Amino acid sequence: MNILYDEHLDGPLPKVDKQALLQALQAQIPDLDILHREEDLKPYECDGLSAYRTTPMLVVLPRRVEQVQALLKLCHGQNVPVVARGAGTGLSGGALPLASGVLLVMARFNQILHIDPDARTARLQPGVRNLAISQAAAPFGLYYAPDPSSQIACSIGGNVAENAGGVHCLKYGLTVHNLLQLEILTIEGERLTLGSEALDSPGLDLLALFTGSEGLLGVITEVTVKLLPRPQVAKVLLASFDSVDKAGRAVADIIAAGIIPGGLEMMDNLAIRAAEDFIHAGYPVDAEAILLCELDGVEADVHDDCERVRQVLEQAGATEVRQARDEAERLRFWAGRKNAFPAVGRLAPDYYCMDGTIPRRALPEVLQRIASLGAEHGLRVANVFHAGDGNMHPLILFDANQPGELERAETLGGKILELCVQVGGSITGEHGVGREKINQMCTQFNSDELNLFHAVKAAFDPQGLLNPGKNIPTLHRCAEFGAMHIHGGQLPFPELERF
Amino acid sequence: MNILYDEHLDGPLPKVDKQALLQALQAQIPDLDILHREEDLKPYECDGLSAYRTTPMLVVLPRRVEQVQALLKLCHGQNVPVVARGAGTGLSGGALPLASGVLLVMARFNQILHIDPDARTARLQPGVRNLAISQAAAPFGLYYAPDPSSQIACSIGGNVAENAGGVHCLKYGLTVHNLLQLEILTIEGERLTLGSEALDSPGLDLLALFTGSEGLLGVITEVTVKLLPRPQVAKVLLASFDSVDKAGRAVADIIAAGIIPGGLEMMDNLAIRAAEDFIHAGYPVDAEAILLCELDGVEADVHDDCERVRQVLEQAGATEVRQARDEAERLRFWAGRKNAFPAVGRLAPDYYCMDGTIPRRALPEVLQRIASLGAEHGLRVANVFHAGDGNMHPLILFDANQPGELERAETLGGKILELCVQVGGSITGEHGVGREKINQMCTQFNSDELNLFHAVKAAFDPQGLLNPGKNIPTLHRCAEFGAMHIHGGQLPFPELERF
Repeated sequence: MNILYDEHLDGPLPKVDKQALLQALQAQIPDLDILHREEDLKPYECDGLSAYRTTPMLVVLPRRVEQVQALLKLCHGQNVPVVARGAGTGLSGGALPLASGVLLVMARFNQILHIDPDARTARLQPGVRNLAISQAAAPFGLYYAPDPSSQIACSIGGNVAENAGGVHCLKYGLTVHNLLQLEILTIEGERLTLGSEALDSPGLDLLALFTGSEGLLGVITEVTVKLLPRPQVAKVLLASFDSVDKAGRAVADIIAAGIIPGGLEMMDNLAIRAAEDFIHAGYPVDAEAILLCELDGVEADVHDDCERVRQVLEQAGATEVRQARDEAERLRFWAGRKNAFPAVGRLAPDYYCMDGTIPRRALPEVLQRIASLGAEHGLRVANVFHAGDGNMHPLILFDANQPGELERAETLGGKILELCVQVGGSITGEHGVGREKINQMCTQFNSDELNLFHAVKAAFDPQGLLNPGKNIPTLHRCAEFGAMHIHGGQLPFPELERF
Repeated sequence: MNILYDEHLDGPLPKVDKQALLQALQAQIPDLDILHREEDLKPYECDGLSAYRTTPMLVVLPRRVEQVQALLKLCHGQNVPVVARGAGTGLSGGALPLASGVLLVMARFNQILHIDPDARTARLQPGVRNLAISQAAAPFGLYYAPDPSSQIACSIGGNVAENAGGVHCLKYGLTVHNLLQLEILTIEGERLTLGSEALDSPGLDLLALFTGSEGLLGVITEVTVKLLPRPQVAKVLLASFDSVDKAGRAVADIIAAGIIPGGLEMMDNLAIRAAEDFIHAGYPVDAEAILLCELDGVEADVHDDCERVRQVLEQAGATEVRQARDEAERLRFWAGRKNAFPAVGRLAPDYYCMDGTIPRRALPEVLQRIASLGAEHGLRVANVFHAGDGNMHPLILFDANQPGELERAETLGGKILELCVQVGGSITGEHGVGREKINQMCTQFNSDELNLFHAVKAAFDPQGLLNPGKNIPTLHRCAEFGAMHIHGGQLPFPELERF
């Protein structure tokens, strides 16, 4: 599958002579591994989203910061665009390469530099895998909280670039909330420290600005994260509902009861059946929706909270509430959820995973509206999401070999994201904007806001060499896309009030 | 008292003709209240710090956003500097006026616009007082967590500008962690929305960038904050120690035990005696140090945690551990702490309050070093601080009428901040940089980092009209100040290792 990306809308990229660049790199950084043959470049043409493909001009695989520094200085001097990439598991095309630029693969920077159990911090190279951090911290009774579903493979550098979340971010926050310090290189090759190990840093908060900036501001060479003590106990409840609506309302009720679960996830019938068929998690396949609610902390507290949540769920109309009997069942419950994307992927030749957020109170209404939008476009939509924080992942099923289905899926996806903005939410929860949602940025932001983004980007990278064409659309693109900016503005569907 | 501020180091400010400006304002914004007579301007010459004084050229007191917008457009067009001010309770001179600029007082924007108990948010005008938010949220069982000691007077707009903290920020975070959305005006008078009510916002995180930017990037016209459910129970333990050192180690032990107190505060003997004398809180006046440790949450949990903390404190060598018997005693224990600054202020004609952060593990050593620095400079230092998050508030006692004492206090203060940076901390925890710590910014950051701050500032305000001379020093100033940049660099005191 190959969704066309209208690159011309983001302005022409500099012309780069591949052979001259290759020779310059070989001459100036002789020990740098460079891939340049077509067959070696192929594996780098897409990311976890796989809807877009571009073969990079060159791939470089440095091992030392000095090599990255030399590379950036050279590219800066010769006006060559650079795209940094971690593990390549992104879901919005944020690290997609350019046909006329260098793909800077940071995967070999995979060392855990230091774990400080007293300060509860870990200092990491950017290519360290997310799960490896918690594994290394485990002997100290600590772990790293953000846990994207790709945590076995995705790297901490990519997590920072996309401000990754996960099932635990309702309670423990996104990557930005679990971060202390970054070492970065600017496009000019300057080494900078952003943030500090202290509570707060003076000056402008460039650490937060950099987090989630999708490779537009600099290249991450070191990451210091916070570690948390592992909860003594974690229990999970599985509640079944005979309507998606009731499940949505139960989510709001749990939060309103003053309980902050470690995870609060929802799946609809299509997702439940797909996951059950694939993982055999023990899900109720006849339920219209399920909620998975995890409570963690100290024993007595978790026990009390489980009882309170059970009461809330029953009052909200759950047809069944089951507590995982043991750790094995708890992990099985989660395995179904964590494998929901590949499970749904078995239902149709292709699927398109969306990532929007909405205020929690809008959940029932938005789910109804997604169902009718799906019916209008003749496509099935499975819903899997971080319900507690309103982060939805509608999965649109389609078959790219059927003429017109891909286009219908794209149109439907765009409408779902616009719906999120209309109800006061946003077009991304944790997957980022990347290349995929760049047009929807025109819906989310007005031209003054986009101009400010461009000005801040230019403060770091005036020539626009770092990851051009991602994250921030040009005003020209927005004009071509013809988006109505609806943030706080008028609503194309007058029946929908701003919640 | 009047500490001289070397304004020339931040470049010449634009020449402004007061009469012409006044006439233009009166003509173009006829319903705007403007103060222009010397006697009316006097009350605005300082903030809560009171060490610096400047009489503003003009003070404006708008009531409507449109007035602020018109003012900014006029000032932008006529190259007039603008300083925004909330309640004027700041402690670092962040809102100090300029002799050749407009002081924009936002105090009349004091309406609570909306409280949404389901979404747990409050939408506020910037002049709403911090405590008024919690009072308005109380009927819904909610409150706003950040609680600076000035909470009865300080405004939410100022809290955002300074990224204010408080005794609860160890557990509940600084202002930036409790913020969802800002409406701002740029210097050009554009209205922008930063952040959203959703979990995450796409694009660059300008909300976090803006928070703590001390009025350099724009003027806040609306703030949406998160509210939290009020804890069912709060208990406080008061532990006495016969050495500051042991108290410092006990702090680390509590955190290492996996407990996150709602507040964890430390006071040394000088501060204890001053507070006891002033408030009669029931503090042990013979103790070398006390810790106040508050635990909040559900009943059973708090009970268990109190027992665990008591054990940790006793093992750490506490000579006495008392739990407040009732709510009245709990509030009395806190009243002593919250009034420690004015209490210490009774010990000497003047005091200089510092605000640095250090890694928790460095507490005992840094306290020893502060004691010997104080002795070297012949000045007493009282220590009061948010121990849990390493945010120290050394209070340097002096008498400005004694020749040389003011200068010695300033020198000592600077050394204490440099010490914070040396051990891996920072020159501010929650009071901001403002005018007071602008020279120490040269110690904290290198010239590449400062240049990046200037570039980001210029993305918002290319002419540098918003709050010039605060927060970010010019490189010229740093060269004159002759600071050694020591972040991660060499240490002037070789005996001090980087902790």
